[in-house]
Formats: sequence, C-alpha cells, structure tokens
Amino acid sequence: MRIALDAMGGDYAPSETVKGAIKALELVSHKIILVGDREILEQELARLGAKGESRLLIKHAPEVIRMEDQPLIALRNKRHSSIRVGLQLVKSGAAQVFVSAGNTGAVMLGAKMILGSLKGISRPAIAVTLPSMKEPFVLIDAGANVDSRPENIVEFAIMGHIYAKSILGKENPRIGLLSIGEEDIKGNGLTRNAFLLLRSIPQINFVGNIEGKEFYEGKADVVVCDGFVGNLALKISESASSFISHLLKEIFRSSIATKFAYLLLRKKLEQMRQKVDYRAFGGAPLLGVRGTCIICHGSSNAEAIANAIKVAVEMAEKRVNERIEAHIEVVRDALGVGKSLWKQLRGKLTQFREFIEENDGGEE
Amino acid sequence: MRIALDAMGGDYAPSETVKGAIKALELVSHKIILVGDREILEQELARLGAKGESRLLIKHAPEVIRMEDQPLIALRNKRHSSIRVGLQLVKSGAAQVFVSAGNTGAVMLGAKMILGSLKGISRPAIAVTLPSMKEPFVLIDAGANVDSRPENIVEFAIMGHIYAKSILGKENPRIGLLSIGEEDIKGNGLTRNAFLLLRSIPQINFVGNIEGKEFYEGKADVVVCDGFVGNLALKISESASSFISHLLKEIFRSSIATKFAYLLLRKKLEQMRQKVDYRAFGGAPLLGVRGTCIICHGSSNAEAIANAIKVAVEMAEKRVNERIEAHIEVVRDALGVGKSLWKQLRGKLTQFREFIEENDGGEE
Repeated sequence: MRIALDAMGGDYAPSETVKGAIKALELVSHKIILVGDREILEQELARLGAKGESRLLIKHAPEVIRMEDQPLIALRNKRHSSIRVGLQLVKSGAAQVFVSAGNTGAVMLGAKMILGSLKGISRPAIAVTLPSMKEPFVLIDAGANVDSRPENIVEFAIMGHIYAKSILGKENPRIGLLSIGEEDIKGNGLTRNAFLLLRSIPQINFVGNIEGKEFYEGKADVVVCDGFVGNLALKISESASSFISHLLKEIFRSSIATKFAYLLLRKKLEQMRQKVDYRAFGGAPLLGVRGTCIICHGSSNAEAIANAIKVAVEMAEKRVNERIEAHIEVVRDALGVGKSLWKQLRGKLTQFREFIEENDGGEE
Repeated sequence: MRIALDAMGGDYAPSETVKGAIKALELVSHKIILVGDREILEQELARLGAKGESRLLIKHAPEVIRMEDQPLIALRNKRHSSIRVGLQLVKSGAAQVFVSAGNTGAVMLGAKMILGSLKGISRPAIAVTLPSMKEPFVLIDAGANVDSRPENIVEFAIMGHIYAKSILGKENPRIGLLSIGEEDIKGNGLTRNAFLLLRSIPQINFVGNIEGKEFYEGKADVVVCDGFVGNLALKISESASSFISHLLKEIFRSSIATKFAYLLLRKKLEQMRQKVDYRAFGGAPLLGVRGTCIICHGSSNAEAIANAIKVAVEMAEKRVNERIEAHIEVVRDALGVGKSLWKQLRGKLTQFREFIEENDGGEE
C-alpha cells in the first residue's frame, strides 16, 4: 500500500506535513508519497535530516491550491496542484490513500470528481469523530452536502455504521438522528422522513432522535444529519468553546490569585484541551468515494498529520469501502427494493406520508 | 397595562414564579395577574407574605399543561390551563403581555393560535439574546418554525432589526445570515435565496453570512436562520458548554492543588456563568404575534421571571409590534411589491435563480 500526502496543504505546510510524514513512518509500514514541489520538499527533507529515507517518495506537483481559493475554479485551473495530483495517484492505483490538510472544499470536490462514488452511494459525506461525556462519536455528514434528501441520510447512517464498527471498534453502533424535539414540531420535513426510513432498516441499530441539548452526552455512536446542519453543529461548538476559553483566560489574568490558580491547573487544562480537540482523532474521512480520502483541519500539526495517515491506513486495511458497499447491498435486499433502492424508497415515503401526519409529535 | 404571568409554568412553579412576580413589582409599575389555581396561588402569596398586595391579582385557571405534554393535544384538551387562560387575557385586552416558563411548544402554538399574527407576518419567530465576545446579539428564529422559506427569513430579519433597535438599543443593527461558507457549497438553497432577498432591502443593514465558527464573535447584532437550525445552534451550544463545565469540574476535583485553585477562582467563575447564561437576558419573545408573549427557560428562577416581566413591559411600552408592522410596510413599499409581498418576492426569486447559479460561491 502507498499513501499519498498533500505535502503543500495546510496552514503549516510544508514543514509540519513533512514532519508528520516522518513521524508516520513509525506508525505504519508503508511508503508515503509526498505530493508537492520537488525542490521545496527535498530542501525540507534535508533540513529535517530525512533525506534518502527509502519509504519517503516525492511526486512533483508545482502548483498549490490556497485556503482562500474558490474550490471549483482552483481545481479547474491548477491541474498540477498537489490536491489534483495526489487524488490522481489514488485514481490510477499508484496510491490507495490520500491525506490532505489543504483547502477542504477543493479536496472534497476533487475527490468526488476524480475518484467517483462507491456502488450504491449517491452522496459521499464527511465523518468527524467528536468527544462526548462518555465515548467519542461520529458526526456524519459534517459538511460535504447541503439540501440532503431522506435517502441520503440513510446512506450516511450506513457509512457511519461501518466506520464506527471498523475504526472506533463499536460492536453494534447506536445510530441517532440529529433533530429538534422540544417543541410541538418534532424535526423538519427531512428528519421526519429520514426517521421513518431509518426505523425500517433492521441492519442498523437506530436509537431515534438526538436533540441539540443531548449532542455531547454520548447517547449515540453515530449522529447523522444533513451537511449544512452538521457543519454548523461542528463549527458552532468550536466557536462556543473558543468563547469559553476566552472568558477563562480573562479570569486567569484578572489577579495575582487567579494567575496562581492557573499555574496549578495549567498542565491539566492542556490535557483537557488535547482530549477534546477533534483533530487528534486523525482527520475526517470523506466516506463514500472510491479510495480512501482523509481531510485534516487546516491548522494540523505534524502529530495530527501522522495520526491521519495511521487512520487512513487502518481504513484501507479494514476494507471500509468494501464493507460499505456490501452493507448497502444487504440493506437493499432486506428492504426488497433491488438495485434502484433510493428511487423506490422515495415511493415508500409517499405511502408513509399520511402516517407521518397522523403521528406528528407522538414519535417518542 | 397589565401583565399576565403563567404562575404554574416552569420547573420551579409556582414558588419561583410567584416570587418572580413579587420581585417584578419593584421593576415595573403595572399590575401583574397571576394565572393559575387560585387556592394554590393564595397559599403561595400568604407563605411569601405578599397577600393583599394590590398590584398582584389572581386569575383562576385550574389546569396545568405539563412539560412532557404534547402541545397540540394539551391545548385542545386543557381549556382551563394557565397557558390558555393567560393567552385569552391578552386576546381579550384584559392584559397586554403574557409571560410563561411552561411548556415552550404549548406557549408557542397557543400564542400563534389564540393571538394570531401581526399584519404582514406569516410566521412568528422566537428571538433569543445570546452573549458574544463583544456585545450580546439576537438569534432569530430559535425554534418556532421549521422548513422556513426565504421570505420567512426576511420577516425574521425585520423583526430582529426592530427588536435589537428597541430593546438592545442598537442604532443600526447589523443583520447576519447564519450559513456555512468554507466548502465549495456556500450555504444551502434556503440561505442562498434568503441572501439575495436580504441584500436587496435597503431598510436593514445586512452584513452577509455568519459562519458557524464566527457565531460567538459578535460580528452581527442579529443572526437570522430557520428555526430548526436556530434551535440546534442554541441547544448544541448549551451542550458544549455543559460538557466543558463537566471536564473543568473533573479537573478541579482531581487533586488538593486543583481544589485550592478552584477556591481562588470560584467567585469569578460564578460571575462568568451568570454572564453567559442567556436566561438572564429576560426570556425570549415570540415576535410576530398580536400582543407581547415572552417564553422563559423551563428552569427559570424568580430573578429570570422578574427580568422577563421587565423586558415584556419594555417591549409593550416601546411598541415593538407596531414598529414591526410599520417596517414591514416600508420594506414592501421600497421593494414595490405592494400588499402581497411574499408571493411576489417568490416571483422575484425565480428571476434571480439563474443569477444565483452563475455566481455560486463567488458571493463574498
């Protein structure tokens, strides 16, 4: 197996990406292809004393898609960018895995365009592993799709199921549907329909709605939602956490006594910060594309990159993609809807509609 | 003016609600009608030494809608519940303001059904005031509507504009649209259309998209969104904050040194908790209904109830409703779409659609 690493992607590339690749050599036994400007990467390897390391290869890609570039335009115009060249390596079979901390939109769109989708998957989705009061859980989709349809949510659930089982080691992952439930309206059109579909699939362990107030309580191993909602859930959590940390810093700075308190807490606070930092979980896979594609946070350091490489290899070794395709097949057979699963599911939804109206609000 | 208070609503009713009413007498000069079981309320007033207080009246309502009741069914079956009776007082003109910490769904649905909507408003919305790194801001809709249409978002923006101006004292409130923007897809169908509408209205100060990661940065005075998204934004923030506070408690408990650190910080931490507690802002108005209706958090204490009464009175005194109706009228005239504003706006959107597709992603 070979791993293609976007050596030019991320806020701290190429120094942290190359350092991450060197670190990863200790975690995996495969070859890593650094994709980027050959001259820059050779200098970087020399500087880090890793020149001549036989498991580190370079694939020349002179162009870089910047964080601020508009994904579609950049992918079109920068044919020799590290993102395009790296994905092409996976497409051609020269690598099995692509890892990037670069422009998220470009990686996502590029992977969809260049690699294509798995059999039975109409929309690939981002799976992010988040901490909770109990065990970590998977949020899917964390931002690859907007305006999802109920049948897409089912795909996300199946991909999340396989991912949580293979990578997080959950025997029978509990699948929850992110929704609202306190008011007279339980959920919206999308979640009410998705709820009915998810409930009708015996091959996943659907545990019902997860409300916003329960998000970090660890009530589900996989939380499924549309990507617009998932992205906001993730980013608003980050914003809330930055806000609290800002307020705490103000408190610590406010007097000599509180400065002293900070010194007593510093080490533990740093451990906590690392514990809740979802980047430490090794990047977020874009599930549902052919090949393994891991998207890292733009601010990833060497450790985050190395972790992502490790998870990517694990995903490929555990054949997550093949298992997703097989499970989709099983669900299709069980529902008796054959090859055109989703179209027929939509037909079923129409039959369900009356039932939904009648049972409005009485689901739980 | 008279204030109707749902004395039976909330986790700590009737003791905290009655206490809140007594507290509120110091903040407002009006009469407060306690709505609930007369016998229970008279006992409570006697217990608190407020029997015979001339500004505290009682309106008998023997039934209670519980937190776990299904709103529509409860409103139908409990015709003598404090929520229904309280809203009827506003409807009949016996009171101008209704405040409740009871079943949110029931208050919301009841207010919509009994009070009806303001002229020009098709969907009332909940406005919650939240803290930020800079000034507090208004999130609207925080959960009254799902599957909103672009024209509803415009209504929310206008209501938020008037509320921020009248109650938060913002001269020219900055209106932001909650959306996602990092990926190739900027927003979803709803926000892209709403963006175009909001941009075309000179009577509001639209500042563009607010992304999840900027949510608590204070970049806008009013953040507008669909209620499904707004409810999740609010509740996931609460969940993230509970999670962090849980982790901090673990740290404080972990050793003698950290216990000591906690003692040094305790007072400041408590101040911080109060600062970010959005309940302290005095409840959330359901804007867009005829009459003033304030919904408090179920766990409201006497102080939160008193604050809510104060804000409710302020809203009525500053004629927020009349100003909303007038502003809707002005926007209509400016857009030249006459009385059937929203239908025509939908027509405009169709014209815009091609433009949207062409400019996809290049908005900012």
